[in-house]
Amino acid sequence: MAIEHVAVERLSEQFIKIRSLSEKLASKLQNEDTMIQAMPDVSPPKWHLAHTTWFFERFILKEKNPSYVPFNPKFDYLFNSYYETIGSYHPRHSRGVLSRPSMNEVYAYRAHVNEGILSLLKEYGEHVPQEIEDLIEIGLQHEQQHQELLLTDVKYNFSCNPLLPQYTEMVSAHQQESQSQTSYVNIEGGLVEIGFTGTGFSFDNERPRHKVWLNAYQLASHPVRNGEYLSFIEAGGYDQPEHWLSDGWAAVKKEKWKHPLYWRKTEDGWYTFTLTGEKKLNLDEPVCHVSFYEADAFARWSGKRLPTEAEWEHAIGSIPLEGNFVESETYHPVVGETHSKSPIKKAYGDVWEWTSSPYTSYPQSKPLEGALGEYNAKFMCNQMVLRGGSCVTSRSHIRPTYRNFFQADKRWQFSGIRLAEDQS
Amino acid sequence: MAIEHVAVERLSEQFIKIRSLSEKLASKLQNEDTMIQAMPDVSPPKWHLAHTTWFFERFILKEKNPSYVPFNPKFDYLFNSYYETIGSYHPRHSRGVLSRPSMNEVYAYRAHVNEGILSLLKEYGEHVPQEIEDLIEIGLQHEQQHQELLLTDVKYNFSCNPLLPQYTEMVSAHQQESQSQTSYVNIEGGLVEIGFTGTGFSFDNERPRHKVWLNAYQLASHPVRNGEYLSFIEAGGYDQPEHWLSDGWAAVKKEKWKHPLYWRKTEDGWYTFTLTGEKKLNLDEPVCHVSFYEADAFARWSGKRLPTEAEWEHAIGSIPLEGNFVESETYHPVVGETHSKSPIKKAYGDVWEWTSSPYTSYPQSKPLEGALGEYNAKFMCNQMVLRGGSCVTSRSHIRPTYRNFFQADKRWQFSGIRLAEDQS
Amino acid sequence: MAIEHVAVERLSEQFIKIRSLSEKLASKLQNEDTMIQAMPDVSPPKWHLAHTTWFFERFILKEKNPSYVPFNPKFDYLFNSYYETIGSYHPRHSRGVLSRPSMNEVYAYRAHVNEGILSLLKEYGEHVPQEIEDLIEIGLQHEQQHQELLLTDVKYNFSCNPLLPQYTEMVSAHQQESQSQTSYVNIEGGLVEIGFTGTGFSFDNERPRHKVWLNAYQLASHPVRNGEYLSFIEAGGYDQPEHWLSDGWAAVKKEKWKHPLYWRKTEDGWYTFTLTGEKKLNLDEPVCHVSFYEADAFARWSGKRLPTEAEWEHAIGSIPLEGNFVESETYHPVVGETHSKSPIKKAYGDVWEWTSSPYTSYPQSKPLEGALGEYNAKFMCNQMVLRGGSCVTSRSHIRPTYRNFFQADKRWQFSGIRLAEDQS
Amino acid sequence: MAIEHVAVERLSEQFIKIRSLSEKLASKLQNEDTMIQAMPDVSPPKWHLAHTTWFFERFILKEKNPSYVPFNPKFDYLFNSYYETIGSYHPRHSRGVLSRPSMNEVYAYRAHVNEGILSLLKEYGEHVPQEIEDLIEIGLQHEQQHQELLLTDVKYNFSCNPLLPQYTEMVSAHQQESQSQTSYVNIEGGLVEIGFTGTGFSFDNERPRHKVWLNAYQLASHPVRNGEYLSFIEAGGYDQPEHWLSDGWAAVKKEKWKHPLYWRKTEDGWYTFTLTGEKKLNLDEPVCHVSFYEADAFARWSGKRLPTEAEWEHAIGSIPLEGNFVESETYHPVVGETHSKSPIKKAYGDVWEWTSSPYTSYPQSKPLEGALGEYNAKFMCNQMVLRGGSCVTSRSHIRPTYRNFFQADKRWQFSGIRLAEDQS
Repeated sequence: MAIEHVAVERLSEQFIKIRSLSEKLASKLQNEDTMIQAMPDVSPPKWHLAHTTWFFERFILKEKNPSYVPFNPKFDYLFNSYYETIGSYHPRHSRGVLSRPSMNEVYAYRAHVNEGILSLLKEYGEHVPQEIEDLIEIGLQHEQQHQELLLTDVKYNFSCNPLLPQYTEMVSAHQQESQSQTSYVNIEGGLVEIGFTGTGFSFDNERPRHKVWLNAYQLASHPVRNGEYLSFIEAGGYDQPEHWLSDGWAAVKKEKWKHPLYWRKTEDGWYTFTLTGEKKLNLDEPVCHVSFYEADAFARWSGKRLPTEAEWEHAIGSIPLEGNFVESETYHPVVGETHSKSPIKKAYGDVWEWTSSPYTSYPQSKPLEGALGEYNAKFMCNQMVLRGGSCVTSRSHIRPTYRNFFQADKRWQFSGIRLAEDQS
Repeated sequence: MAIEHVAVERLSEQFIKIRSLSEKLASKLQNEDTMIQAMPDVSPPKWHLAHTTWFFERFILKEKNPSYVPFNPKFDYLFNSYYETIGSYHPRHSRGVLSRPSMNEVYAYRAHVNEGILSLLKEYGEHVPQEIEDLIEIGLQHEQQHQELLLTDVKYNFSCNPLLPQYTEMVSAHQQESQSQTSYVNIEGGLVEIGFTGTGFSFDNERPRHKVWLNAYQLASHPVRNGEYLSFIEAGGYDQPEHWLSDGWAAVKKEKWKHPLYWRKTEDGWYTFTLTGEKKLNLDEPVCHVSFYEADAFARWSGKRLPTEAEWEHAIGSIPLEGNFVESETYHPVVGETHSKSPIKKAYGDVWEWTSSPYTSYPQSKPLEGALGEYNAKFMCNQMVLRGGSCVTSRSHIRPTYRNFFQADKRWQFSGIRLAEDQS
Repeated sequence: MAIEHVAVERLSEQFIKIRSLSEKLASKLQNEDTMIQAMPDVSPPKWHLAHTTWFFERFILKEKNPSYVPFNPKFDYLFNSYYETIGSYHPRHSRGVLSRPSMNEVYAYRAHVNEGILSLLKEYGEHVPQEIEDLIEIGLQHEQQHQELLLTDVKYNFSCNPLLPQYTEMVSAHQQESQSQTSYVNIEGGLVEIGFTGTGFSFDNERPRHKVWLNAYQLASHPVRNGEYLSFIEAGGYDQPEHWLSDGWAAVKKEKWKHPLYWRKTEDGWYTFTLTGEKKLNLDEPVCHVSFYEADAFARWSGKRLPTEAEWEHAIGSIPLEGNFVESETYHPVVGETHSKSPIKKAYGDVWEWTSSPYTSYPQSKPLEGALGEYNAKFMCNQMVLRGGSCVTSRSHIRPTYRNFFQADKRWQFSGIRLAEDQS
Repeated sequence: MAIEHVAVERLSEQFIKIRSLSEKLASKLQNEDTMIQAMPDVSPPKWHLAHTTWFFERFILKEKNPSYVPFNPKFDYLFNSYYETIGSYHPRHSRGVLSRPSMNEVYAYRAHVNEGILSLLKEYGEHVPQEIEDLIEIGLQHEQQHQELLLTDVKYNFSCNPLLPQYTEMVSAHQQESQSQTSYVNIEGGLVEIGFTGTGFSFDNERPRHKVWLNAYQLASHPVRNGEYLSFIEAGGYDQPEHWLSDGWAAVKKEKWKHPLYWRKTEDGWYTFTLTGEKKLNLDEPVCHVSFYEADAFARWSGKRLPTEAEWEHAIGSIPLEGNFVESETYHPVVGETHSKSPIKKAYGDVWEWTSSPYTSYPQSKPLEGALGEYNAKFMCNQMVLRGGSCVTSRSHIRPTYRNFFQADKRWQFSGIRLAEDQS
């Protein structure tokens, strides 16, 4: 999705296209739905819509357009997420109290800022400065991240309502594809390189490309499936501390985890809650909504391990970037295979794959200057890296070098497992 | 508000009148506003609208009309507030996650249940059983309580939004009346009686009428005013432990109380948040939104004390029941006097008055049978009695013997102070 | 225990006698035992020994003897319990970190202050001012309260140690007496008086004597026994919300209460932990270590109620003050009867009896002047009154008018139940 | 500290020597001091003494000597720290309630187990099995870790007592040595190896030796000094979010950090609490008792960074293992230099040095079999690596490859900072 030297029209089109997806995703909600924050980790959908807009207003319009008239000066306080260096902000856990601005006002805010950005681009004409291009690009990448969060958050919010609302109808057209058994693919190690290089957009946390030594290893051809994970449950995995990290075992006991988030055991077997409502658990689908702790415990129980992020990137970097993304509108990991020519399947989309790598900066990396330096760098502690995107990620958002990161106990993301192993 | 032996028409009319006030009060809100639960003590307005409806459905239609078809069987779980004996219920602190049923569905639910009740009454014709009358009456009293809560909860919710939304425009027509100075009225004590007697509705907690010995005492002619309370603040009252109960002082330090809820000090003086937006503090208005702890500390600092509920009722029981109620649509305590012929002014309406009496059962009292026995009796611990109603109470809801009760640290109710003193 | 006009010798003797009991009680402990604070409600035994000493130092020696040299100036901070008006103090919940002063130093501190008080008395000779007498008296009453707390706290602390240490050996000499069945005694009501009058010591919270109207009632002849309480448990009382106050039911669920504190069910039946170690539950002993919530729920389940404190005092005020007190060295409620000539048995000693009365001030009461006004008055909120003393109370400490008070959820005191009933 | 093929005498001597240090360290405490657990992270000294003994009893005597008679069967429950796979254990945060066993019993327990181990060795004579040697070795390493913890915990416990007790007198003989300025030492990178190899003891987490790619870098010659850290404080470092990781900034605000643990600002300048009491802050001493968050923020403010653990080990691995260890009995980081022939000074002892490396397993590592596999591996999440030992570490306990690890917010360890930098 390189945007260097694109014509203004192309940048404007891209802007309109990505921005309008947010509204399309929100259009399936009722106004009441846009208010919910069922736990501190999630944000109300309305807040996502406003915050992504504020990002363009704050970092582009207010900085670069002296004549810009802010939509509402208080929105700086309301819709700043966590940029400490540019001022105080509304507490994260209290986003659910903001019934005003109403959805209608938020839509007006979005239109106002869209108009501002598009006018600014038009004004520059052929000569959009690189800095503006970069800021718009990062703003769009940011919006795509929040589109994914909007869906994961709606799923969580709805799961807390005993009425179990549906976000949307199931795409009945989706056809179950055949799927091969999981095998282990040998990967050569050695002194390899990982990290972003070349043109096009990348986040600061993916750079610079750098050398890493890898011992030879094996990587599973597929993500772990529900059926495999169910074996772990039925073998008593959640009752046996020997598989678990200390913090993980503490979480199991404190949170009373007995299965992945959204699973429910009934007399009629296992069910799982999805964005299309609760449905019978399909044992062939990739397991989803597991924490790092569960992924790690499952791996240890299996006699395997999780891959490092370098192993993941080295093995998968050259596989075609295709898969079950948000564009498929399944909003759920599916059965079926991609990458017909590669022995590694389903590397992208479906579920984010936990790696064994803590999220840290790459050697000699340089965070962005100014407030945007807070975008990624300040989270480089107590989080684990996930790779590959999910069924609610935009296809145009993901890259081989893309690093997602969450705390080890988080389960509301579409997070799954791919196993690895040392070569003996 | 006696309803014994009323004709069916009168009962139906009353039902329609009280039920429709809920919708009128909610009509000033946007759908997003009806979702907010800014702290566990408050409920989302939508929940109030549904819960009051469920009360009629559960205790009348389901019990008394075998052919009644429930609107949605899951509503029993969603909208039961705290009746343990009739089944489990949605956790109180999580009412804010219920985006569904939507407001439209809740309105349909209300219409469905209204229709059910009115049909039932029509069916009975002239022969409405006493039990049905009683249940409808308690349901309407219950709805009036929730109408008051809806307003207090909206006020609290809106105060947490930095945009400080207005619930409604100020009634500009309200004219400032003159007001006399506070004096102390001598009241004879002796062996007196308090508690409800006679006909008409009363809650079980107001009965039976019973004897109480009172020493002679004095009662203030007016509730304490903002200006008087400000003197306490300016004298350092919030920094001096000697005025405070132990639990009160702990609350002052933990909550960092420095003034009543909703007050804000600016360079331009004191402001207070109201249902018509933030406005300059009027020193002559009754002080409002103080906890029992603050009322008690203020009284001690003043060299006075709070009255017991028996003292309050004995002194005020015969004063005409008039005042600034919800019907005035001020939604705020005002300057001005009532009861021109009594030395005691403003006894009803404006602000609930904290008494020094813990909320306990009257001697030989009998709670209601069955689940409705949970209505009042089970809260008779760790709460204090308030008397007199407020500017958001319905005129038809209050009585001389009416006992309101809240925990000593609660401040979001329209709660104020009237002082008393021993006769020397 | 009147001390007015006693000769100095008698006051000194009494001082020595009561002070030395603290050391006698502590002598059964190892130094390590004196450090434990197993929950915030309890204090380490060493702290009790030091705090009671500080009370004499701070309120008498420092105030009345200009030449007094404090033992250690920092002890004012360490051993002030809660007197806000005389300065800041070490946080209550952190008393367990004070390994220094060591026990040896605390004993030296006690000797230093004892010497100071006795010298002061000797100096006054025949002319001890009333104020000094009063302060010494209150200091001794205070010490007796902490002697009781020391025992209740040691019991709690030891119960948290899986080794279940014994505080002392069981008094094998204690002989099981016979005991009659519980009956209900009719008590005339009317306009009665309660509260302290006459000479001798009383706390400010017992005064003044005042009129109360009582309807005729019945009071149980005996406290509730373990066997009776066990019937409540076996009938499912802890699983049935209908018996419980709302706050009580919340406590049952949060704390997972299934039986009184210290009870334990084994394959071999019920056991209870005592200061002489764990022993088989004796069904005839008074039930002990129940909260107000449990007492209240048991009463409701029984079709009875708890007495008010006025009912208790009116019925029991004239019964001889005898019973199973700390002097008996059983440290446990026992089987057997007292008051052979009264139909009401075991009114004093054994277990404190929860009343249905919230702890509030008596009409026209006057708290003590100065810091000692904090002794009782500031706790008059959110606590319930208990009457009659227990097996760890000193015989000389209790009176018919004595008011003990604790929060409704506390169970580590020796608290039990006596039932009452309206006369029909 | 290789123990392979040592004669039995040498192993026994070593056992006696290390075990007796625990008692020597404890001998400066009063029995009351051995009870304190001033926060959940610390353990009472008595618990350390018992737990280290239990380790030998549980993993050697009970496993390998069928005729061994346990000292007290309940100690398995009381003194297991966290080995989930061998049974349940007393909750960590409640170790402070264990007044029994008393210190005398704990000493008897130590003697009993010492006797057991030494008898077992004697029985084997010349033929001590390798497994026994290994277990004794790990038990002794474990005891040394707890000796360090005992001192850090006593320091923390005493710091919470307003009397600020001294653990021991200051060693007056310690002479201030001269010290050079901090410079930056260039280190060649490349494909290097880290991790333990060779003979002698190492923990499973140090193995296997493996390849790591390092870019060329610079390492500071000295740890950061108090004076340098003070500049950060005075420049407002604790008020400027731009230096801090997100979790770090949250900790700063929640814990109200303004300076390292144990520092105190007075009118007379800065003081710090030490095991020899509070003393004036020496600006030339290494800064100590900082969290990883503070180390990281200081580095960023300085325009530098923390080294990775591979950088640390690669640069320091060949420097002589000398420094200010527990044997010096300073119990405090000191001024002065070591390693006269190396440009890198004070690499060992004084303060543990935070690295930028999260604590994870080495490639192809194998945790120990059985319960001892829980020793290190299960903590490999949410912790950061520290290197080099401190002034309370035993000289014989540390190695170039030794990996210590703590959560990023911990400050009660003797943890300091050494800076690094990329070569430009």
